[in-house]
This record gives sequence, structure tokens and C-alpha cells, in this order.
Amino acid sequence: MKRRVKIVEVGPRDGFQSIKEPIPVQKKLDVIRGLLEAGIQKVQITSFVSPKAIPQMQDAEIVAKTILEEYPDKELFALVPNFIGAQKAVEAGLKELTPVISLSQSHNLANVKRTHEQSYEEIRKIRETFSDRKLTVDIATVFGCPFEGEIPETQLYWMIETLASMGIRSFTLCDTIGIAHPSQVQRMIANVKARYPQFQWNIHIHDTRNMGMINSYAAIQAGVDEVQTAVGGLGGCPFAPGATGNTATEDLVYMLEREGYETGIHFERLLETARTLRAEVNGNYSGHQIMISKQPCFVPQE
Amino acid sequence: MKRRVKIVEVGPRDGFQSIKEPIPVQKKLDVIRGLLEAGIQKVQITSFVSPKAIPQMQDAEIVAKTILEEYPDKELFALVPNFIGAQKAVEAGLKELTPVISLSQSHNLANVKRTHEQSYEEIRKIRETFSDRKLTVDIATVFGCPFEGEIPETQLYWMIETLASMGIRSFTLCDTIGIAHPSQVQRMIANVKARYPQFQWNIHIHDTRNMGMINSYAAIQAGVDEVQTAVGGLGGCPFAPGATGNTATEDLVYMLEREGYETGIHFERLLETARTLRAEVNGNYSGHQIMISKQPCFVPQE
Repeated sequence: MKRRVKIVEVGPRDGFQSIKEPIPVQKKLDVIRGLLEAGIQKVQITSFVSPKAIPQMQDAEIVAKTILEEYPDKELFALVPNFIGAQKAVEAGLKELTPVISLSQSHNLANVKRTHEQSYEEIRKIRETFSDRKLTVDIATVFGCPFEGEIPETQLYWMIETLASMGIRSFTLCDTIGIAHPSQVQRMIANVKARYPQFQWNIHIHDTRNMGMINSYAAIQAGVDEVQTAVGGLGGCPFAPGATGNTATEDLVYMLEREGYETGIHFERLLETARTLRAEVNGNYSGHQIMISKQPCFVPQE
Repeated sequence: MKRRVKIVEVGPRDGFQSIKEPIPVQKKLDVIRGLLEAGIQKVQITSFVSPKAIPQMQDAEIVAKTILEEYPDKELFALVPNFIGAQKAVEAGLKELTPVISLSQSHNLANVKRTHEQSYEEIRKIRETFSDRKLTVDIATVFGCPFEGEIPETQLYWMIETLASMGIRSFTLCDTIGIAHPSQVQRMIANVKARYPQFQWNIHIHDTRNMGMINSYAAIQAGVDEVQTAVGGLGGCPFAPGATGNTATEDLVYMLEREGYETGIHFERLLETARTLRAEVNGNYSGHQIMISKQPCFVPQE
């Protein structure tokens, strides 16, 4: 029997927000549709962030409402950097919201303009107000921060326990700048699972140093619940200088299928969406070149 | 105590041969010097191939003689596609030669214009004539062939035994088109080491499907003797359509050092050579974009 892996697509959020030129909403919708039609079950479709901070996300509401209506059976979620964002996401009908906090205080200040205490308060308010929604907290810079380097693991546990005391039960450990290495990922996932087996653990990896594939696989082998990737290897944190894209969904799917895992994703269809995306956004993509598996499978060539 | 890994640089051969525009010999020499000065102990400095087949390698003799004289304590070797190439390599003073044969008959015909039988004869002649030189045979398309797909493992053993019967004691398993996946690499290295523990086993990986890092690491964990990489992720087989570069030396060095291995290579110096190379050849490189680790380590940024 094949082992199942749950791949969660974050390209429409982490990917699109890294592209400076505005992408027409119809193109965004087509990409999201392509991903869902390829068999991806869960997609982070947008971010309810202030359009002043990230103009690319100003169509969050229309994107969310359209896709939620078209795909009622898919798991669709959105990033919410603050209470106002959460409110808008709930109004749009989203059942799962992702607030974000950085393990590093400096990165938290750069990313969401708040101290840790202020972020805790915001998340508590979101949790209490929208008690019928699932909250998954993105913990950024878990594996290293561009300003502070590696943050002691004890601080991570303290943050998890603070969030757990507010009722948070689901977490995504984010390698915001792509600095993690595989044994670190494996150890961290194993540790949080052992300490807090009752919670859900996800991973979010960036490929800055070409360790995206190996780190994602390390997390899978350590038993992570959800692995976040971005089609075409898009992505990059606007407030983490030098960081590049996420692990490319199509690359991870290809490897996992060959390794005997079941992803439920139709590789060739996914590649089609990746190729369309590349053709449309490659020119003005601010991260690294979109790397689409050039030779997906054995093709007899003469 | 740190585990040691022997990283062998093949950029000056596999990398340069993938670049169509002629690179001036002085630039080649500078890159090779940069690599050696960064602490790389073993480098494949050129290929003694017919200039008609690969014009970029027409300066093989001058490159070999210059570097051999300047770095008598380093391990320098060259690819020799045939007996004439071996003769030239020996005349230039090389102590280790690398003949090449493909596990797939079709790829062997495309790559060296010979049947398996003809390749065996050529290698036998090289072995007998230059009995004082070390021969390491590159076995291409071990993990998959662009024309035939996956070749049964039994054929690999048959090839190894045929070569062993001629006195070959050192082999490089080559993933010519970058189709290998990590458990396959680990299994193959474990199998050949278990069957033939008296021989030397090396690995040569291409990054076509973004599995270069994970496959190289899988080989290391399986106990491979030498891991071949190319600075800047250069490389690509001219007779394997669609194949892209090798695992990038700087990416592997960075990861291994963080994983607690000792490579003996000075990362920052290596990166300097990689950057020079990128500035000089990026424009006319026929493979994928040279991917140099963009954020080598924690750099406080404001």
C-alpha cells in the first residue's frame, strides 16, 4: 500500500505576493482552478493583507468568493496578518485562516509591525472572535532569521505553548529564508510531534540554498501532516531579503510519486498549469527563475 | 569527530563542455586554480575528446600540462572517450583516466559511437597499454536512459563484472539525465558496495529534476567514495537531450558543512569562483541558469 502525502499549494499566496506586476484576477483564478483540477486538495488561495502593504493581494475577496463557490469540496484557506484580515476572510466564507507570527522578534517587527506580545493579542482576538473557524498559525523564521540567525529551540516551545493556551491546535513551521538543513528539519518535526502529539504540524520550506526538495522530504519522513509547496517554485518573503521561492510543487510531486508515495495529484496536468504560469509571469518575477521540471519523465528522443 | 566527504569537482569537464561559446584557456585555468585554491582536492580538469566532437575541449593538453605542473599534490584526472584520448592524457602526464561507457546500448551509440562490445575492447586496450595509470570507468545512464528508460540492474552487474575482468577497480555511477530518485541512488550504491566491496564507487548526479542535492546526499549516506559536483551547477551531456547541470558544488558543500560533515573546502572562496564563472559564462550557457547559493550564510541585513 502506498503512503499518502498531503501537499498543500501556497503559490496563489506566497507565490503571487512575490510578483511585482499586478496579475489580472482572471489569470489568478485560472491558475487556482488549474491547481485544483490537477487534484490538489488544499490551496492557500490568497492573503487578506492591506493592499498598501502588498498591492498584489488587493483582489483577495473576489478570489476567495469565486473559488469557494466553484470548489465547495476543496480545502481553501488564506493568510490573515491581523484581525481585520481575519474579519474579511470570514466574511468571504473561508473556514480556515492562517495568522502569522515570527519566532524572531526582529522579523516579526519587520513582517507584521508588531512585537510578540502584540501578535499574541491579535491572534487571541482572532481565536476568540471566530471560534467556529480553524486557525493554523504560521510560525516564521523557525529554522533561522535573516536578522538574528538561529533562534534557540526553547523559544519555539514557549511560543507554541503560549499559542496553545489560546486554543491554537495547528501550526506551520516556516523556513522563511530557506536556511534549514535536512537533519534540522527532521529533528524539529520529530521534537514538536513528540512534545505535542495532539496538534497538527505542517512545514513550509523555501528553496533559497537549493535544499527545498531535501528539506521537504525530511519533513515528510519525520511525519509532518501537511507539506506546503508552490507551483513553479514561486514565492519569497517581501520582508526577508534574498529569500527565494518555495519548493516547487511539480518537483516534489514527481519525486514523491517515484519514491512510492501517493499524492493524489495528476502530474502532467499540474505541469500544464506550471508552464502557463511561467509563460505569464516569468518576465517580472522578483524571485529566482521559475524552475519547472524540464524532463518530467522518460520521453524517447532521437 | 566530523565525518569526511570527498567532493570531486567536474565543472572544468562536464561544465565547460556544455558551454557553446569558446572559453579562453586562461579563463579555464583561472577557474581551475580557484577551485583548487578553495581546497578541492580532486578535479576533472578536461576531456581528451576529438575537437570535432566537442570544440570546447580542444585545449585539453595545455590545460592539463599547466595545472599538473602548478599543482603536483592535487588529484587531477581527465575523461578519455577512447584510446587516442587516453594516449594524449598519458602524454600530458595524467595519472588517472576516465573512460566512459553507457549502461544503455542506445546511449552508448549516441555518446561514443560504439556498441558495448566495441567499448569493452577500447577500455581493455587502454587498461593493457597504460597499466601504470589508474582507470575509473564512468558508467552512464545507470539510473535511466533518455532512449530506453530504466535498464535492469542485472545488466549493470554484468557490465561491472566484464570491466572487472579487465582489471577495472574503480567506477562512477552516472545519472546522466538527472532522472534518479533518492531511494534508487541509496539502493544502487548499497548494492554495488555489498557485491563488490573491493572496488571504489563514485557518484555523478545531474540536477535536471531538482533532485541533485537529495540524490547526492543519498549517495553519501550510502557510503559512496567520491561525489562528483560542478561549480555553479554547470554541466549537461551533449548527447542526452534536455539534461541540465550537475549538483552545484557550492550548494552541496554548504549543506554538508551544516550537516556536520567535513569537506575540506573553503566555502567563501569557492563561492567567489562560482560568482566569477557566472559573470563570465552565464550569457551563453546552454544548460539551466547557473544557480549559485544566493544567501550562503546568515548575513544581518537591515
